[in-house]
Amino acid sequence: MEHSLAAARLAEMVDPDRLWSLLMALARIGGLANGGVAREALTDLDTEAKRFIIDWAKARSLGVFQDEAANLFVRLEGADSDAAPLMIGSHIDTQPTGGKFDGAYGVVAGLEVLACLQDSPFKPTRPIEVVAWTNEEGSRISPGATGSSAFALARQLADMAKATTTDGKSVGDEISRTIRATPAPMRKMAAARPFTYLEAHIEQGPVLEAEGFPVGIVTGIQGIRRLIMTFTGRSAHAGTTPHPMRSDALVAASRAMVAAHPLTEGDEALRLTFGRIELAPNSPNTVPAHVAVTVDLRHPQAAVLDEVSARLDRIAQDKRGPCEATVKTISTVSPVTFDPGLISLFHEAAQILNFASRPIQSGAGHDALHLARICPAGMIFIPCRDGVSHHETEHAEPSDVTAGARVLAFAAASLAGIGSNA
Amino acid sequence: MEHSLAAARLAEMVDPDRLWSLLMALARIGGLANGGVAREALTDLDTEAKRFIIDWAKARSLGVFQDEAANLFVRLEGADSDAAPLMIGSHIDTQPTGGKFDGAYGVVAGLEVLACLQDSPFKPTRPIEVVAWTNEEGSRISPGATGSSAFALARQLADMAKATTTDGKSVGDEISRTIRATPAPMRKMAAARPFTYLEAHIEQGPVLEAEGFPVGIVTGIQGIRRLIMTFTGRSAHAGTTPHPMRSDALVAASRAMVAAHPLTEGDEALRLTFGRIELAPNSPNTVPAHVAVTVDLRHPQAAVLDEVSARLDRIAQDKRGPCEATVKTISTVSPVTFDPGLISLFHEAAQILNFASRPIQSGAGHDALHLARICPAGMIFIPCRDGVSHHETEHAEPSDVTAGARVLAFAAASLAGIGSNA
Repeated sequence: MEHSLAAARLAEMVDPDRLWSLLMALARIGGLANGGVAREALTDLDTEAKRFIIDWAKARSLGVFQDEAANLFVRLEGADSDAAPLMIGSHIDTQPTGGKFDGAYGVVAGLEVLACLQDSPFKPTRPIEVVAWTNEEGSRISPGATGSSAFALARQLADMAKATTTDGKSVGDEISRTIRATPAPMRKMAAARPFTYLEAHIEQGPVLEAEGFPVGIVTGIQGIRRLIMTFTGRSAHAGTTPHPMRSDALVAASRAMVAAHPLTEGDEALRLTFGRIELAPNSPNTVPAHVAVTVDLRHPQAAVLDEVSARLDRIAQDKRGPCEATVKTISTVSPVTFDPGLISLFHEAAQILNFASRPIQSGAGHDALHLARICPAGMIFIPCRDGVSHHETEHAEPSDVTAGARVLAFAAASLAGIGSNA
Repeated sequence: MEHSLAAARLAEMVDPDRLWSLLMALARIGGLANGGVAREALTDLDTEAKRFIIDWAKARSLGVFQDEAANLFVRLEGADSDAAPLMIGSHIDTQPTGGKFDGAYGVVAGLEVLACLQDSPFKPTRPIEVVAWTNEEGSRISPGATGSSAFALARQLADMAKATTTDGKSVGDEISRTIRATPAPMRKMAAARPFTYLEAHIEQGPVLEAEGFPVGIVTGIQGIRRLIMTFTGRSAHAGTTPHPMRSDALVAASRAMVAAHPLTEGDEALRLTFGRIELAPNSPNTVPAHVAVTVDLRHPQAAVLDEVSARLDRIAQDKRGPCEATVKTISTVSPVTFDPGLISLFHEAAQILNFASRPIQSGAGHDALHLARICPAGMIFIPCRDGVSHHETEHAEPSDVTAGARVLAFAAASLAGIGSNA
């Protein structure tokens, strides 16, 4: 319990004003008049944000490094400088028009933990590194999570570098350009295996706000199955073709969608979204010949995703009428379960610091998804207003921003070990 | 019955080879390698087709005229040259990629009737004019039926001339350019009020072919109501937002569409088509915030269109769930009932000429819709393969092409009066 007392003491040192100011200062880089932030990965603004963090770190005499994926590390030395570092991170790139909190919050909260430790009488046994991973969002460069997936060896950086940005640039060139413009020494990715990885993030959903919890302890990241359901009939004149002679692909698709809606009842963790429709010919006076509907399916258990996919296929065949129907899986992300020890630690932190918390599944992907492959990983969420994210109006309350950082500080102190060197 | 004998004799003079050859020759202007025709209104190819018809008419010493809407008239003089002319027409413009028959058939069948009369011992009492109306299709220039609606004073030509073509030209300029390039003297629209108007056309639907009728006698043109049904919910993350907290506009729209499908049961004449969907944000991992679905509603009775529109509104409100729903009428075309005397005359013609025929509603609009405002108007249909139209594969059987022209010749002879001047 002694470590808890020291950790709680550190958590209390989190300075709400300093934390909020740093978050708002970062948000001015790429800041929009309407309150949003436009700072896509590997753009000049993204580099400017990195330089801002480097300046902040250097002013505090913290170490800075970058790696081949242009991931940026701010390092607080530990008593045992050879020990594998505790890493705390997230990302500072945004959607084309994003908000101030998605990603940035996790990085800034990590920097606040370092600042608290520096100002405290404690010195961590292990080094602590705060990481800004490259291109989590995946909007300018697909797929997302370039930096964290390369770092965790989940994907080959060389493969991702061959891609092209939405504005027609080579991803490899953009990484090199960013590295050249970032005043931090290089350190090979392989040289920096983490002891443990922690990430704080806004929920990007409405649950914590609706239920009044300032902190959510993330149990895992839902598996994602992306399917495409297609129906192919025959285009025909909307005026001249009697209904019994039609093969209307949209009639089939709408019947299948309605039949699929009840699948989400009775399993609170299942998410089933028809988000995108393509219709051909998509003309008001022509019977639709072809409909493709995307299905976004999420659940913490891969077996449930398998079963729901199979049911969707049966529904599509049942409801196709005179059309042809196909249901194809186009991508799969396996569910991740976060480290039980870290979940307990976050729970203890929230309890001791007196923040109401609840376990929560992440419906969105995060850098932690990849880090969980190579070390124990854990995440906490704070609420965001109306569950809105990826939007200029994205907002988190200052009190929740502070709460999340305190829980993070508690966990970091516990994990890095803070010696009674005061 | 004497007129019937002469009319039947004229009908028998229709030359299947001459008729088919003229149709195929016209189809070469703008002809595509795959058998289709690309000859949109007021393009150079459209003018070339007019020059082809003018050359044909001049070779036969027939009169040619054009009017301010670039409608083209080929005139066979009557014994009473002051009498209001019988007009036979359709259009020679096509969809961006159309077929050989839509429109062209009605014009060429009319020219064949003139040729038969010239070659016959009969001279018509009234003048007969074959008309190619400008821009029936409405693909390059919206709205369609520019020529016939202006001629029938249903719309002001000056208003339509202010529009812009899909390729960015002024419609007024394109009309002037076409008139200058067309070697036919001008005649004011007001100077050419018709006695009666006849039009032959492919069905553009599957009924006649499926039931084995070479000729359909069109009783009227269905009224068309175009509506837009919208549902507005709230966009949300597909992974993070539990279903009970969603306002999914596509869930609402698909429920409403499925609830509306049964409206078409029990009334064979009703057509209800959801042809176009717009989704926002239309992203696979975002709950749809907004859906707009076009509704194309057709029926011979305006009262039924009113009632079905009202029912659709109730369905949209019933099924909207947590979303907002609106159903708005964006355009209305009133139903047209063709002249009962002409329907009887076509019926008599088919019977005497021994062609099986059935009454049929037109589900598509035609130039005759507008002409019916200013004179008795009637139409016949011939089958087209698989009901396909507005497509390169559009096809009509030569025997049906001939049958329609014979019925048209019979009716024309009866209406124009063919004197026993032989």
